[in-house]
Amino acid sequence: MTSLSLDELISALTCLPGVGHKSAQRMALHLLERDRTGAERLAISLQGALEKVGHCERCRNFSDTEICHICADQSRDSSLLCVVESPADVLALESAHAFKGKYFVMLGRLSPLDGLGPEQLGLDRLEALLEEGTVREIILATSATVEGDITANYIADLAERMDVNSSRLARGIPVGGELEFVDSGTLSRAMSGRQQLNRSD
Amino acid sequence: MTSLSLDELISALTCLPGVGHKSAQRMALHLLERDRTGAERLAISLQGALEKVGHCERCRNFSDTEICHICADQSRDSSLLCVVESPADVLALESAHAFKGKYFVMLGRLSPLDGLGPEQLGLDRLEALLEEGTVREIILATSATVEGDITANYIADLAERMDVNSSRLARGIPVGGELEFVDSGTLSRAMSGRQQLNRSD
Repeated sequence: MTSLSLDELISALTCLPGVGHKSAQRMALHLLERDRTGAERLAISLQGALEKVGHCERCRNFSDTEICHICADQSRDSSLLCVVESPADVLALESAHAFKGKYFVMLGRLSPLDGLGPEQLGLDRLEALLEEGTVREIILATSATVEGDITANYIADLAERMDVNSSRLARGIPVGGELEFVDSGTLSRAMSGRQQLNRSD
Repeated sequence: MTSLSLDELISALTCLPGVGHKSAQRMALHLLERDRTGAERLAISLQGALEKVGHCERCRNFSDTEICHICADQSRDSSLLCVVESPADVLALESAHAFKGKYFVMLGRLSPLDGLGPEQLGLDRLEALLEEGTVREIILATSATVEGDITANYIADLAERMDVNSSRLARGIPVGGELEFVDSGTLSRAMSGRQQLNRSD
């Protein structure tokens, strides 16, 4: 290339997930040719985020402050605690507007081979939260994989020891899903988890 | 969201081409969770590129210096000048290793409706280059569209007035292309531009 700084920018852009050399090249040329303001804004906000974004002391979600907005929100139900694997899961649940309790973010799931044990997932902090006595129910919103299931079982045991109820997200056919295209594992879960239709409700 | 700096980062990332809100969110979370070093490098190289990358005074390609590497390279043939629309085209031609002359980058193509006339494309500078007398042949590597063709014709006229030969990139069936799937416009160009097979060569 004719410019070393451009080469360096292209190579730095490949650290973004899903961006290879060709896309990085297109992005770098676009920013320099057509959107220098956007590039400047991106540089500034990257540095801002690196400086300011840490983890909430209660729920371990990303936060600019010691305690995040959700944990500090008095209008949310402190008796419900939803345990998720990552900040992205909190975003997904929040955008569904289906939950008005609080969260606990493990930043991973139990995976001893990767060196992720209860300590790395902050489960000691979760235990301390439960000891406060405000939480009545833990909702286990781990992913529907073997590791997610193991993590959920581990936390359910922990909750039982502390006399806190625990529940899991329902498994079944996704809304809008056609039976024909649903995989057999999901179908058998949907069948075993079938619910009574109470037409008088 | 729980963090304003994270929100700002997500929204800044959408300035990248082909990146919507969802991808931007995934990128921001990835950078903060797993690749803070990469994020820092990206911020620094963005600012470096914004400060240093300008345009070469001869060919208008991106360059850190007043005259770019290609224009300064004595081993390249100054009698051949390839006129392209954008720096991305130079990258594509360079990676094909098929051209050892010099370039002129118009940063666009003639498009009066978008306010792109000969002046915006730096054709006065191209004329000045031709007046130096070293260029024997101009290779018109504009894109194979109506606007690209018009731009090529405009420059060919200019070259003729200055007694410089001009040529265009060949049109035809792409290498590896099967006749069955080639569009009819390309096929008729390939037919009219057919070349004699000289088996004695």
